[in-house]
Amino acid sequence: MLNRHLIDLADSSVEDWNEITRLAGDIAKHPGYYSSACHGKILATLFYEPSTRTQMSFQTAMLKLGGSVIGFDDPNNSSVAKGESLKDTIRVVSGYADIIAMRHPSAGSAKAASLYSRVPIINAGDGGHLHPTQTLTDLVTLRGEKGRFDNLCIGLCGDLRNGRTVHSLIKAMCRFHGNRFILISTPHLRVPPYIIRIIEESGCPYKEVDSLAEAMPELDVLYMTRIQRERFLSAEEYLAQKGVYVLDKEKMALAKDDLIVLHPLPRVDEISVDVDDDPRMKFFEQTEYGLYARMALILKMLEDEKYIDPQPKDQGHSCSNPRCITRQEFYIPRVFRKVGDHEICDYCEE
Amino acid sequence: MLNRHLIDLADSSVEDWNEITRLAGDIAKHPGYYSSACHGKILATLFYEPSTRTQMSFQTAMLKLGGSVIGFDDPNNSSVAKGESLKDTIRVVSGYADIIAMRHPSAGSAKAASLYSRVPIINAGDGGHLHPTQTLTDLVTLRGEKGRFDNLCIGLCGDLRNGRTVHSLIKAMCRFHGNRFILISTPHLRVPPYIIRIIEESGCPYKEVDSLAEAMPELDVLYMTRIQRERFLSAEEYLAQKGVYVLDKEKMALAKDDLIVLHPLPRVDEISVDVDDDPRMKFFEQTEYGLYARMALILKMLEDEKYIDPQPKDQGHSCSNPRCITRQEFYIPRVFRKVGDHEICDYCEE
Amino acid sequence: MLNRHLIDLADSSVEDWNEITRLAGDIAKHPGYYSSACHGKILATLFYEPSTRTQMSFQTAMLKLGGSVIGFDDPNNSSVAKGESLKDTIRVVSGYADIIAMRHPSAGSAKAASLYSRVPIINAGDGGHLHPTQTLTDLVTLRGEKGRFDNLCIGLCGDLRNGRTVHSLIKAMCRFHGNRFILISTPHLRVPPYIIRIIEESGCPYKEVDSLAEAMPELDVLYMTRIQRERFLSAEEYLAQKGVYVLDKEKMALAKDDLIVLHPLPRVDEISVDVDDDPRMKFFEQTEYGLYARMALILKMLEDEKYIDPQPKDQGHSCSNPRCITRQEFYIPRVFRKVGDHEICDYCEE
Repeated sequence: MLNRHLIDLADSSVEDWNEITRLAGDIAKHPGYYSSACHGKILATLFYEPSTRTQMSFQTAMLKLGGSVIGFDDPNNSSVAKGESLKDTIRVVSGYADIIAMRHPSAGSAKAASLYSRVPIINAGDGGHLHPTQTLTDLVTLRGEKGRFDNLCIGLCGDLRNGRTVHSLIKAMCRFHGNRFILISTPHLRVPPYIIRIIEESGCPYKEVDSLAEAMPELDVLYMTRIQRERFLSAEEYLAQKGVYVLDKEKMALAKDDLIVLHPLPRVDEISVDVDDDPRMKFFEQTEYGLYARMALILKMLEDEKYIDPQPKDQGHSCSNPRCITRQEFYIPRVFRKVGDHEICDYCEE
Repeated sequence: MLNRHLIDLADSSVEDWNEITRLAGDIAKHPGYYSSACHGKILATLFYEPSTRTQMSFQTAMLKLGGSVIGFDDPNNSSVAKGESLKDTIRVVSGYADIIAMRHPSAGSAKAASLYSRVPIINAGDGGHLHPTQTLTDLVTLRGEKGRFDNLCIGLCGDLRNGRTVHSLIKAMCRFHGNRFILISTPHLRVPPYIIRIIEESGCPYKEVDSLAEAMPELDVLYMTRIQRERFLSAEEYLAQKGVYVLDKEKMALAKDDLIVLHPLPRVDEISVDVDDDPRMKFFEQTEYGLYARMALILKMLEDEKYIDPQPKDQGHSCSNPRCITRQEFYIPRVFRKVGDHEICDYCEE
Repeated sequence: MLNRHLIDLADSSVEDWNEITRLAGDIAKHPGYYSSACHGKILATLFYEPSTRTQMSFQTAMLKLGGSVIGFDDPNNSSVAKGESLKDTIRVVSGYADIIAMRHPSAGSAKAASLYSRVPIINAGDGGHLHPTQTLTDLVTLRGEKGRFDNLCIGLCGDLRNGRTVHSLIKAMCRFHGNRFILISTPHLRVPPYIIRIIEESGCPYKEVDSLAEAMPELDVLYMTRIQRERFLSAEEYLAQKGVYVLDKEKMALAKDDLIVLHPLPRVDEISVDVDDDPRMKFFEQTEYGLYARMALILKMLEDEKYIDPQPKDQGHSCSNPRCITRQEFYIPRVFRKVGDHEICDYCEE
């Protein structure tokens, strides 16, 4: 079974993923059977930074399970503006709601929230750090469209340096047998070294290439990503890179018949609207799979009872990541763990 | 039956209007009978510009049918701020919701959205262009308060140049027998020439007058409108015109006993609060009729199945209206149709 | 029974309070029994100034009764921005909803709204004036944690001059036998003279002290309050006072074993996070009691039927309080009542 909270998909096992994705598939087939499964239950969507799509997906998931939704989507309108700590907000809201989906700009914030919550916390994105329900969505899509998680040639294209959905998907797919990665980007936007290390440790073959066109014929799955303007240091850098990798009719002509193209959305122009009607484009279907993924997740997590997690001991020194939640809210016990030679923060993992 | 989408009330027949307004009347009488009619269904209210009243009316309508609601009311909080196209938003949301009510500042946006939606689209206002559910509300009010759509002397007062609700109501009432229009405004705020043409083609008598007091004794229906500050070019122009046509006790003393006064709301000061308790004032009742109108509409439109409309062919040249949705989102196929001698854009109708 | 509206807790009797708080206690014990009590009913939360916590508490209360919720939380997004009066908004919304919870920055606004509403109005805070559901929450907490409203030694600490929750709680507790008050603040932040008069008229003993530590051993109840930044005239004044009264481990060591500590939340740093796990801290429980208080209130108020209150006569001269609602919306009948020697405004009570 899943842990009490969903902070990082890596915290749960491949068996958990199989169970959740199978349940999602069953919900997709028999939605009527689940339409009152969460009757009388309340989901709180606490969005400290706005993300309409993700918030609507969670809301719809809960409504389709027969439950209801409270929450906010603007930190300026919330008690936060009166100086309230994350702890106090979470303690109060966990007295109102049965489950919480939370998005926050600070790395590690969902993990910190889980220390104080009496109900399950779902990490709906903590800054540039983790976004596990997107990866779960990707897995449900692969199960639905490919029927398997293994023996796939997976291309990832675009901003591979900053894209947390890319990192998370690679980490997940490394846990299955026979997958192969083609990492398609400019040298400036390559995946970070720690991801390369994870791939190498898994034994999965990979290559880093510059050309999307060249990679096309080999791929079973192509994961396109937006070059997010807000991740760039300057407007010039953004403009220089953004147009480089656009998927269009010419490139699609090079691909297998059973390729599937995914995208975490929103797209800007990295997939031409000219190919939207190509049946291999699955990124709109992917958002529906995301709905079923979140329904399955909420359903599973609500099987547990109310609790408060035992508090970890403060280890006395600060995390060096300025965007870590522990640098903003000082009562949170600072915890580090050993990874190989060095220590990483248990919240933001830097 | 209604079309799949409600973009423009003129797209549907007088028989459709009779059916919807009759259903609205039945819902008003027997609300309990309809209170679970949309159980398990989801309405998305996509408000790209805020309109609390209209949004609350749609939300209440869906809730009173036993359904639920998702949506947004602030474009700055939405994925739009990350550069997402209308098409992508609509494709995704039509995977979440069973029906969409959409308000957008660009003319033709609802029509464009209907090309990509898998569920019915209701136009809840596309800039200064159309607002069909307001006109449907007016029809339901006329049926409820007058019992008929024909043989009425209808006064329209205020900003007749910019008021889309006025234009739409005139176009609707021209389709019934024996109606007469008195158009009450300053010369500067007269109805535009194309509306005059529609009246003349219908054969309905009309006159344009300056004085509200003079018109009062003849009227069966008086439709007051706000002089909308945001439709004016300058603050001076606004101040010069806004106080000219105020409905007060003296003017009401000149009117028939069975006059009804309507107003699309919000009012500023064009109807004096001193006459609010006059039983001929029906503008608050009108908002309740609006609720029943929207309930009837949602109910009817949800009888249809999921689909995507066939895509029209792009005709290659641009619309000249800078506020048209096709001038902002370039993938939308540009379509024109002949009206008399000249061509008009199929989206914004200019 | 309660009045039709809840504007001021002082308008209802001790018997009413007993009935509501008993009902809240029963809901807390048997929530399942009440989970469909408001099925098909709609609560409108009209928040003219944002207050996420209070709004979420009302929303959750209605959802847990099986009802649904509409509303807004941002005046800039509402029709108000188009110049609509409170009267018109209330008339329209009371045609949509079965009950309204309203927060507004002007004193007396909820009272004014009640003149025009066809459904019950709950005052969810009218500027610095009244916030009766917070006081009801405090009463439900006292019943749950102390089992009584009388014979308590109650300390109130922090900003006693500006804190409306403090004033309201004192007024409420003065109506029970044998209560004693210790008012803990700097001389600058003492309770206003009219509150002292109320205490003296009730015959309850009280003292005003500077030291929280000295007061601790005597207390049965300690009501801590935030020094609200927005109530201060300058940033300097805020900084000078805010750190003075902080509840920490040393002070808690001086207190009785059965002390309970309450706080209306949000807190900033007036209660150290170090004492959060002390079982005498009841301020998070208090927010759950607040949920049951609001559930009980909604349930009771919805037993009544639709109506419009008879309109009071305008008394012709203006209220002198610049923050009073009658100074902003001029159609509201100006009404004053005699209190002792002088007249006070019936809306803002100044």
